[in-house]
Amino acid sequence: MKDSKDKISISKATIDRLPLYFRTLRLSQEEGMEIISSEELGQRLGVTPEQIRKDLASFGQFGKKGVGYYVSELIRNIGEILGLDYNWHIAVVGVGHLGWALANYRNFDSLGFNLVAMFDVDPNKIGQCIKGTEVFHLDRLKEVMEERTIHIGIIAVPEMYAQEVADQLVAAGVRGIWNFAPRKIKVPEAVRVINEDLSVGLSSLSFYLARQTPTN
Amino acid sequence: MKDSKDKISISKATIDRLPLYFRTLRLSQEEGMEIISSEELGQRLGVTPEQIRKDLASFGQFGKKGVGYYVSELIRNIGEILGLDYNWHIAVVGVGHLGWALANYRNFDSLGFNLVAMFDVDPNKIGQCIKGTEVFHLDRLKEVMEERTIHIGIIAVPEMYAQEVADQLVAAGVRGIWNFAPRKIKVPEAVRVINEDLSVGLSSLSFYLARQTPTN
Repeated sequence: MKDSKDKISISKATIDRLPLYFRTLRLSQEEGMEIISSEELGQRLGVTPEQIRKDLASFGQFGKKGVGYYVSELIRNIGEILGLDYNWHIAVVGVGHLGWALANYRNFDSLGFNLVAMFDVDPNKIGQCIKGTEVFHLDRLKEVMEERTIHIGIIAVPEMYAQEVADQLVAAGVRGIWNFAPRKIKVPEAVRVINEDLSVGLSSLSFYLARQTPTN
Repeated sequence: MKDSKDKISISKATIDRLPLYFRTLRLSQEEGMEIISSEELGQRLGVTPEQIRKDLASFGQFGKKGVGYYVSELIRNIGEILGLDYNWHIAVVGVGHLGWALANYRNFDSLGFNLVAMFDVDPNKIGQCIKGTEVFHLDRLKEVMEERTIHIGIIAVPEMYAQEVADQLVAAGVRGIWNFAPRKIKVPEAVRVINEDLSVGLSSLSFYLARQTPTN
């Protein structure tokens, strides 16, 4: 297998599918599967087996011809490709309902993401804790981020403050931003942004339902 | 253009990209763009222009060769393909932090999804309102769903109750379920389920960051 951390040029579409493979493999593991074929994996995901083999081949040699993939091995391999072995420190900015929900999301822990701080401006929230992690005033962002080596900032503030918070995160040396505000934010090229749009899932559902009943 | 509501066989990957095209086009429109080429759209999305042309060609003839796509026209067309003109009635089950956040998510309104009810079992929450929509006791699910013709149920309850709520939604005649619980739910084939896993976005971010610094 190639060193998965090498600088490589892989299509964004492939990269976007990796977390889905990872998630589906973990669910398969929970169900007790030890070996999975690209056909089975494809069926669970709605992706062709050829696509899966092609995607995985970009990163090295996985699985055995005629046997399939060893589930736990593939989980470990894809986890490494995704950098989930890095023990990322994350912080949530904006402790409204969405921020609390994200801070409590158990799948983050299980993937090795460490919530190390939260930030807000509401005096009633400062000092509160979720799972032992404290809410700090936004004014202390830079100080706390440096002290706790925060790599990833999650923006869960109202849309109108998203850019301001992004600027503060960048100034404090953040490396990646996961943006839940439904607005594009501008950051320097070195900072990676993933924009989350919750309406994407609902729109896919709409697509399928619209086809079930041509007359509503 | 073909009738976009015909029963058609399109790859899931294409269908998953449509909401992303839709979202990016709407952002481009907000920025004042009237015409966009498949190259520009591709660059914004990290998808090749060939892929975009191929995806859209599955549904009909869009755009003008050498000119590009008319943004507002393509938004309308993709919106129709996605069934966003159906005026879907949605309900949120589970009014914890995630449920409140989803009920308040302004992008749903703007896409034409109508939140018509919320459900919970906590007596303190019953009767509360978000944007004029009431929280009902879960016991009244079937009655309220029939009365308000609810098409889509959003599951935002703790994981261990996800299947129970899914069963209740199915018994009440729901057509689609958007499941935020990190657990697979079983439903009859006629009911469409989209599983949302918030860790997918964070994992993609991890992938990119892991490649920026091979030694952490």
